[in-house]
Amino acid sequence: MLSPFWGEFLGTLVLITLGTGVVAGALLEKSKAQNAGWIVITTGWAFAVMLGIFTAKTFGSQDAHLNPAVTLAFAIQKGEWQNVLPFFGAQFSGAFVGATITWLHYLPHWRETQSSELKLAVFSTSPAIRRPFANGISEMLGTTMLVVGVYVIFSRGSGGVTAGIGPFLVGVLVWAIGLSMGGTTGYAINPARDLGPRLAHAILPIAGKGSSDWQYAWVPVVAPLAGGAIAGFLLKSVS
Amino acid sequence: MLSPFWGEFLGTLVLITLGTGVVAGALLEKSKAQNAGWIVITTGWAFAVMLGIFTAKTFGSQDAHLNPAVTLAFAIQKGEWQNVLPFFGAQFSGAFVGATITWLHYLPHWRETQSSELKLAVFSTSPAIRRPFANGISEMLGTTMLVVGVYVIFSRGSGGVTAGIGPFLVGVLVWAIGLSMGGTTGYAINPARDLGPRLAHAILPIAGKGSSDWQYAWVPVVAPLAGGAIAGFLLKSVS
Amino acid sequence: MLSPFWGEFLGTLVLITLGTGVVAGALLEKSKAQNAGWIVITTGWAFAVMLGIFTAKTFGSQDAHLNPAVTLAFAIQKGEWQNVLPFFGAQFSGAFVGATITWLHYLPHWRETQSSELKLAVFSTSPAIRRPFANGISEMLGTTMLVVGVYVIFSRGSGGVTAGIGPFLVGVLVWAIGLSMGGTTGYAINPARDLGPRLAHAILPIAGKGSSDWQYAWVPVVAPLAGGAIAGFLLKSVS
Amino acid sequence: MLSPFWGEFLGTLVLITLGTGVVAGALLEKSKAQNAGWIVITTGWAFAVMLGIFTAKTFGSQDAHLNPAVTLAFAIQKGEWQNVLPFFGAQFSGAFVGATITWLHYLPHWRETQSSELKLAVFSTSPAIRRPFANGISEMLGTTMLVVGVYVIFSRGSGGVTAGIGPFLVGVLVWAIGLSMGGTTGYAINPARDLGPRLAHAILPIAGKGSSDWQYAWVPVVAPLAGGAIAGFLLKSVS
Repeated sequence: MLSPFWGEFLGTLVLITLGTGVVAGALLEKSKAQNAGWIVITTGWAFAVMLGIFTAKTFGSQDAHLNPAVTLAFAIQKGEWQNVLPFFGAQFSGAFVGATITWLHYLPHWRETQSSELKLAVFSTSPAIRRPFANGISEMLGTTMLVVGVYVIFSRGSGGVTAGIGPFLVGVLVWAIGLSMGGTTGYAINPARDLGPRLAHAILPIAGKGSSDWQYAWVPVVAPLAGGAIAGFLLKSVS
Repeated sequence: MLSPFWGEFLGTLVLITLGTGVVAGALLEKSKAQNAGWIVITTGWAFAVMLGIFTAKTFGSQDAHLNPAVTLAFAIQKGEWQNVLPFFGAQFSGAFVGATITWLHYLPHWRETQSSELKLAVFSTSPAIRRPFANGISEMLGTTMLVVGVYVIFSRGSGGVTAGIGPFLVGVLVWAIGLSMGGTTGYAINPARDLGPRLAHAILPIAGKGSSDWQYAWVPVVAPLAGGAIAGFLLKSVS
Repeated sequence: MLSPFWGEFLGTLVLITLGTGVVAGALLEKSKAQNAGWIVITTGWAFAVMLGIFTAKTFGSQDAHLNPAVTLAFAIQKGEWQNVLPFFGAQFSGAFVGATITWLHYLPHWRETQSSELKLAVFSTSPAIRRPFANGISEMLGTTMLVVGVYVIFSRGSGGVTAGIGPFLVGVLVWAIGLSMGGTTGYAINPARDLGPRLAHAILPIAGKGSSDWQYAWVPVVAPLAGGAIAGFLLKSVS
Repeated sequence: MLSPFWGEFLGTLVLITLGTGVVAGALLEKSKAQNAGWIVITTGWAFAVMLGIFTAKTFGSQDAHLNPAVTLAFAIQKGEWQNVLPFFGAQFSGAFVGATITWLHYLPHWRETQSSELKLAVFSTSPAIRRPFANGISEMLGTTMLVVGVYVIFSRGSGGVTAGIGPFLVGVLVWAIGLSMGGTTGYAINPARDLGPRLAHAILPIAGKGSSDWQYAWVPVVAPLAGGAIAGFLLKSVS
């Protein structure tokens, strides 16, 4: 039961269960966390990442990408391409199952919530101002920051991070990106995080759901991959 | 004075004193923390868990369960059943005493608070939407996440957590569960956490108290135990 | 320049500069942090404690009490009484100077603030519901939790806290006490923290200041000392 | 590609990208983080500092100043002056580029935001009450706290901070200063943090921008340098 594929699947599952969960808590009608605000959403996603990393490492993925953009970046940096496609599969399917768990967890709340836009927002990101090119730049910049952030936290120059604190610090990194760069597009910065739950939204029998907004769906897939690729080339040139 | 039983009793006492305390602060009339919101409640419970763990370890319970569902899960995983019943006793009685301390701590505030529902909410959880089956699924999923989270944080694959940071990270785990999965039922995820204080609510001479809502009381006992059992079987199968 | 007395003085100075500072920021008119709420106040005090501890250790007080109740507790536990009075002096004078720095730091804001009660609240605690006996119990319980918390975090049973994380964890402990037990009296839990700034309030030429509320002043001095003494005897009996 | 200059440039770039980013998120119209409040702003700046430090260390600046006032302080303390001017250049240019990235990141939001004052506030600090002398004292005190805080966290007396936790603790230090001392002037406490983005504000084609408020610009440059110098002499006298 220990393999990088299995680790990526379970790690992304935990990441997306907790990540979509905090949005559900903050947005769905009658939730005890309703309107708890941006500090709750960004903190929830930060700890979701931390626990996803611990899960991935435990079940066989020492590098704990949980994110196709990170997988792409490190493939470019290190020239190792054999795991890219299986990792993508594990990450997207883990994200799909995680979003399904959140749907189940908040089951009585979907009917109580009028807005179909809020329901979609639990699953996928949407831009604050719909301008795909500018939105793509935001997602690209956020993803570059993510990959560079992971690199600098664990770099030799930083002195070596002790076990346990590493996943916490990556959680803090995602906290930082959410707080500082999330206001524009809701910081997908991860194609699996956005597309997996969007597919779940399209397929699951969510009470009173509306459109899955496929028009925007390509932005939080393509732009994070572009950001990851840029970061990969940057890191390759300096390491 | 050092024994696993004593450690579980004192650790759960500290956990519930601080945990019910933060709810009292946020809900009771005239409290300086009144309406401080979900970030305060989830942060307070997180640190309550951290300090409960330090207390339990100090007084003889190295594993620091503080929760019958965790005790059940690890009994299933490791096949060690001899401590289960005494641990349950220590956890429930610690929770009862902890809730009593919070009653004493906020003594002048009970009379000032009109709503008997808010008063009960300091002690026990209640569902956002009363649907026992769905509520039970929420509590079960949250507890499974708790047990699996503890397992992955301390797993060999995670690289070994240094002392001190371990209890902090478990606190962060409970923070994450509260933020992401707490909106539905208030995340008891611990039979002692809910039933011990509910008993205290029923017995203590709380000014203007109402029903202790015994109809719902079985859900946050049975569902966390079921979630713990599921997690125990899952972990047994992979370890 | 290195001595326990000097360390206690500077550590308490830093603690109270930052601690009264966060209250000033949240309460004074026109402050950018005005009405930032309970999460800001409790977080600010937590980090104030952390930095006070680092300061005290750096300048010669390895134990970093910063609090007469903690000094009393450990004197009782360990039977070492020679430092008690000089430590008290260092802590009260450090608190006085720290409060004076906050007065200076927020200088233009005192005139802008109408309420003399808010101005006093920057310096000293006041009860949410004025009932000295119940208020004293709150302060006593909070202080007992503080001393026991410090003990369990650093106990041998907890496995040994690495340098750096120790002061952070004590900060988290004070964060927890603020969140969970602060709603009743504003958690002085430290005679120097309350009396030192109250003296500063009485003496400094604060624009439009009112009473220093000396009637209540004995509660946050006597009750924390009682809580510290209780904790000292408890810990002596178990260690 | 590894040098102290390069590390200071990239570290300050990351610091200011994330730091001005969190203010943009909280202030600009239609941002998902709009009005997220003081806890979000102070948390965002704290983590911005942490990631700036990791970045600086990775790319060759082990000391990771990111701040001319810190560079000046340690030049005075240690008598090493050769790096001061190149560090200043790296810090100001990194801050300028970081602010430019934030402008790009939030590109569609500038037009949507009416207030030209809010737009400037994304880039530079402004005082809550405009009284340059008092504002300067605030900035000076905050910077002294920053330098002394860095010193005590890493001092031998504190016992030695393990790698990884060090940059986090400095982030917490800046969190503390923001929470406790930020209400008066918005805690520039760093000439590069204020002047670099102010220059970017003056030069960039920001939609509907107003004055860059050059009248105030000298305060958050001169006062932090004075605070750093005072701290440097203080630390020289005790170490």
